[in-house]
Amino acid sequence: MFRYPNGKPYQPKNTPKKKQQPSIVYSNRGMTLEEDLNETNKYYLENQLAVIHKKPTPVQIVNVDYPRRSAAVIKEAYFKQSSTTDYNGIYRGKYIDFEAKETKNKTSFPLQNFHSHQIEHMKSVINQNGICFVILSAFNDFYYLDATHLLVFWERQENGGRKSITMEEIKEKGHIIPIGYQARIDYLKIIDKLYF
Amino acid sequence: MFRYPNGKPYQPKNTPKKKQQPSIVYSNRGMTLEEDLNETNKYYLENQLAVIHKKPTPVQIVNVDYPRRSAAVIKEAYFKQSSTTDYNGIYRGKYIDFEAKETKNKTSFPLQNFHSHQIEHMKSVINQNGICFVILSAFNDFYYLDATHLLVFWERQENGGRKSITMEEIKEKGHIIPIGYQARIDYLKIIDKLYF
Repeated sequence: MFRYPNGKPYQPKNTPKKKQQPSIVYSNRGMTLEEDLNETNKYYLENQLAVIHKKPTPVQIVNVDYPRRSAAVIKEAYFKQSSTTDYNGIYRGKYIDFEAKETKNKTSFPLQNFHSHQIEHMKSVINQNGICFVILSAFNDFYYLDATHLLVFWERQENGGRKSITMEEIKEKGHIIPIGYQARIDYLKIIDKLYF
Repeated sequence: MFRYPNGKPYQPKNTPKKKQQPSIVYSNRGMTLEEDLNETNKYYLENQLAVIHKKPTPVQIVNVDYPRRSAAVIKEAYFKQSSTTDYNGIYRGKYIDFEAKETKNKTSFPLQNFHSHQIEHMKSVINQNGICFVILSAFNDFYYLDATHLLVFWERQENGGRKSITMEEIKEKGHIIPIGYQARIDYLKIIDKLYF
């Protein structure tokens, strides 16, 4: 077993094909979550409801080959840790910024799913009056948790407190995101409720 | 000579070292422009003026090697054309979205610097009331050109008109961006003037 630069262990998938898919490498969890969110954002975009995209996976490119008469081939590159959240965009004039994470834990959500760069980014976004939150796939539901709450739990950890958010805390501070057919994880519904 | 997936010809740089730098590959122009904008955005962020980042270069990852006890190595990947603009973020609560391009032309700015996906993205952002523009490095100045104007010139091309924006048009519709010491390309100054 090896670890990512951010220290997360890599669990190899079974099929060799999947091994070559970036999203598997990008995170050893949450692939379905990512796909559902991409579908949701696609629906939002096509219906002019919002313009929200997942940022490309940041890679450090070390070696590129330039064959004649064909496209450049990246021969050596490494995954970089992002300094921001994965998703951002605009909804009804407001800046939207969020991260999506998943846990298999039954009773709590580990804060190690987030790293300090992302937390700092969230603070900056909040300072600029952006709508910043996390989507948590946990306890058989999708939760919208405003970044302001996440920051409190992060602060608690920084001060030596527990390294996770309890299920009770998430159920209290978070909002269950309605599941739709086209908008699979229909988080705009929560934003409407909280901000409009 | 080969062409990028988007049809742009690749002009190799002289130094082999530079050949291996992604930003060269990502665009055969505008490297200094990108560096200046990154420095500018860094200054904005550090001073809590705005939170604006360049999106990572999108790559299609085909083959990844997983050595034991070390980080994953991308062995084969290709540059993808982005479906959005390169830069976005938030400033004083407003969503900011822009693309930066450079030309060496003396009299006009070629529209081939933009591709239709980006134009469609700009339209969507405008529909959501975002602040959308392009930064043009041309005629020994940096110009802020609102996307609403760019769309008109693009439309003209679509209707069989000229494939570029004349210098006169850019000087008339655009705004020269002041050069700062820390904020090298201080485009927030223009946004303040136009939107606040």
